Amino acid sequence: MSSVAPANRVVIIGGGFGGLTCATDLRKFPGAITLIDRRNFHLFQPLLYQVATGALSPANIAAPLRSILKYQKNAKTILAEVAGFDLVANDVLLKDGARIPFDILVVSSGSTHHYFGKDAIWGPFAPGLKTLEDATEIRRKVLSAFERAEADPDVANRKKHLTFVIVGGGPTGVEMAGAIAELARQTLRRDFRSIDPADARVILVENSERVLQSFAEKLSKRAQDSLSQIGVELWLNCRVTDITADKVTIDRGGIIEPVATECVVWAAGVKANPLGKLLAEAVGGVTLDKAGRIVVNPDCTVGARSDIFAIGDMAFMKDSAGKQLPGVAPVALQQGQYVANTLLRRLKGESVLKPFSYFDKGNLATIGRSRAVLESKGIKLSGFIAWLAWLFIHILYLARFENRMMVLFQWSWNYITRNRTARLITGERANR
Amino acid sequence: MSSVAPANRVVIIGGGFGGLTCATDLRKFPGAITLIDRRNFHLFQPLLYQVATGALSPANIAAPLRSILKYQKNAKTILAEVAGFDLVANDVLLKDGARIPFDILVVSSGSTHHYFGKDAIWGPFAPGLKTLEDATEIRRKVLSAFERAEADPDVANRKKHLTFVIVGGGPTGVEMAGAIAELARQTLRRDFRSIDPADARVILVENSERVLQSFAEKLSKRAQDSLSQIGVELWLNCRVTDITADKVTIDRGGIIEPVATECVVWAAGVKANPLGKLLAEAVGGVTLDKAGRIVVNPDCTVGARSDIFAIGDMAFMKDSAGKQLPGVAPVALQQGQYVANTLLRRLKGESVLKPFSYFDKGNLATIGRSRAVLESKGIKLSGFIAWLAWLFIHILYLARFENRMMVLFQWSWNYITRNRTARLITGERANR
Repeated sequence: MSSVAPANRVVIIGGGFGGLTCATDLRKFPGAITLIDRRNFHLFQPLLYQVATGALSPANIAAPLRSILKYQKNAKTILAEVAGFDLVANDVLLKDGARIPFDILVVSSGSTHHYFGKDAIWGPFAPGLKTLEDATEIRRKVLSAFERAEADPDVANRKKHLTFVIVGGGPTGVEMAGAIAELARQTLRRDFRSIDPADARVILVENSERVLQSFAEKLSKRAQDSLSQIGVELWLNCRVTDITADKVTIDRGGIIEPVATECVVWAAGVKANPLGKLLAEAVGGVTLDKAGRIVVNPDCTVGARSDIFAIGDMAFMKDSAGKQLPGVAPVALQQGQYVANTLLRRLKGESVLKPFSYFDKGNLATIGRSRAVLESKGIKLSGFIAWLAWLFIHILYLARFENRMMVLFQWSWNYITRNRTARLITGERANR
Repeated sequence: MSSVAPANRVVIIGGGFGGLTCATDLRKFPGAITLIDRRNFHLFQPLLYQVATGALSPANIAAPLRSILKYQKNAKTILAEVAGFDLVANDVLLKDGARIPFDILVVSSGSTHHYFGKDAIWGPFAPGLKTLEDATEIRRKVLSAFERAEADPDVANRKKHLTFVIVGGGPTGVEMAGAIAELARQTLRRDFRSIDPADARVILVENSERVLQSFAEKLSKRAQDSLSQIGVELWLNCRVTDITADKVTIDRGGIIEPVATECVVWAAGVKANPLGKLLAEAVGGVTLDKAGRIVVNPDCTVGARSDIFAIGDMAFMKDSAGKQLPGVAPVALQQGQYVANTLLRRLKGESVLKPFSYFDKGNLATIGRSRAVLESKGIKLSGFIAWLAWLFIHILYLARFENRMMVLFQWSWNYITRNRTARLITGERANR
């Protein structure tokens, strides 16, 4: 685009909630926007657990980035992995050796699992839930566990196959535990001949005294009641001390308890994408928090560079009350909007801009069919109404209209039939 | 089941069209039916090419076997790989060492790709279209090719990236070529900035003088016209002589022509599952055809064993006119019905049974949006009406009602929007 002023080349790294929102909100920006992602799609991460439990297909919660941006003439998408930054020449360096020059850089590459320093040891046995591959891998593990139990005549082995441990009582852990319990007790109820899937044990391990720490205590309690009702064992104030191929060791208030299981799902810790560290080092004089997040300025810029922004899960910021902003989609999304708005205002010559302020619309988590907890502006809801709200909000935010319709249709169908049609064991052969 | 007469244990290997139909048609059989498959789902193979081109999700065309059989009390499903047969003890031997005893054995384990003796050399570069993993691998290759072209400044390389070669002009090859051409010319039309996806070359290589050999000549001609209209190059009377990572060598009537491409789809040869050979050797005195199919008796039994049946793609049989039955879903399905019926009749003491006779309902192939060819009982149709018939018949036969509704919905949506929403590059990272 020859009409682009040389100072208006915006490069955005990461097509998640933050980066993609920033790109689309810049649709009237008189510059050239380049969105770099190593995947060709935007992923609606809050629903990954539904792929992991066979309720939705991967394509239901992913939309090709090029599709989303196809009519936005000032934007282009590059499918590539970023290797680093040259902040003298102001280039983003790609793994394939190419350089992408920028005037404005927005880094929004999210977070990855963090196993408290045991990544290499625990990681292979306890997949987390960040990518579509994670979700289909967990789906494979969960469904294969029932298959192995059906095929195994040994009672102790069967018990092991039918034990599922979810580590971490945040929204992902709670939703995952609820979904596995429902899968066992409802969906698979009549599918097997040698086992009763309802014998499955689903254990949710939480380090603190309650699940859903970010919610009011009353709602945590409601969520816990709901989980217990659908058969999830809550192990509160418990800490995982070791994970192997067929065992999780859990510290239950001083008592070390080994749990035989081959299916552990990690929903406990995340750390920022390693690009955060590279960026901080390149800029210089920038602090990282202990999860590797960049401590950004109040306007999301990084260090002394007013042309470089970091947003979403890889940025560390506190709200006006001094509380750290959570690593959730709404924060990333609003920061993406904020940065786009900042760039548009700067163009108009406005120099003193308001710092970013997070508008917390509330918290929401679902616990299986017809159950959820919701908290927003002093309103606290649980049960069916909260679940309807959950449904409505997720449908509303699903990135693209096509997916939205398909998901609505699939959910209605699942709800009526109590079935989950995407129960495929793919990738590796099931019996290996 | 203690009420099962010891002579009524039916073991079926393979949950494809043949095996699954046999199992469900035995729902009133007073015996114990065991269905063994290495995958946990029945796959609607005729629509695999739609997964390979991003129009449908894997779960749309696959239904869990246990779900299908959940209410059929006399049937159980085993997820396992078969290693061989002990026809003295009458046991099926599983890879994990277990033995499954049978009184009646039905082998229906289908076919796999066949590269005319070059399996090890060509296979890695030219995936076929038999499994869901094949389909998502081809989807990855096709979509990545456009991405590589977009990123590559070199004109010759771009041309190579945008060249797609489909080997084999049967229904799969024709449907695949049509779908890739549509993907390039319609779906991706506005998605890229450096390339025009419509520049893609789609070459369909066919060994004989026309595509769709099993159809009347007139319809082959119509299909060829349709393919040309949507931009597929037809290389008839051409033979592939070599395939490497970035080149296909094609013999065009004596002239050897190399075509630079990184995306080859194999739709040419199939051979029977190797279990066919194991079974033939175990029974003894049984002939295999050159594709490894068991030459079965007119009642689908194998050799001198009236208790062992082979059906579907792994069975070789001729019709009354002496023509070999094709390796298509309707043949497998009808043979499955026939065997189930045979077992029910034998129970009633009927000993002289009619041989299997294939009721050919016709041929059908689609060539992209609104185009198809159909041939049935002397009726020959092409164009929109044939395409509607194609739609209707596929929806009708989709194994389970849930999938049927989802596919209908997804297709309607794709048709209206000219989009394909399942365009995900998964599995390997796209840029590697």
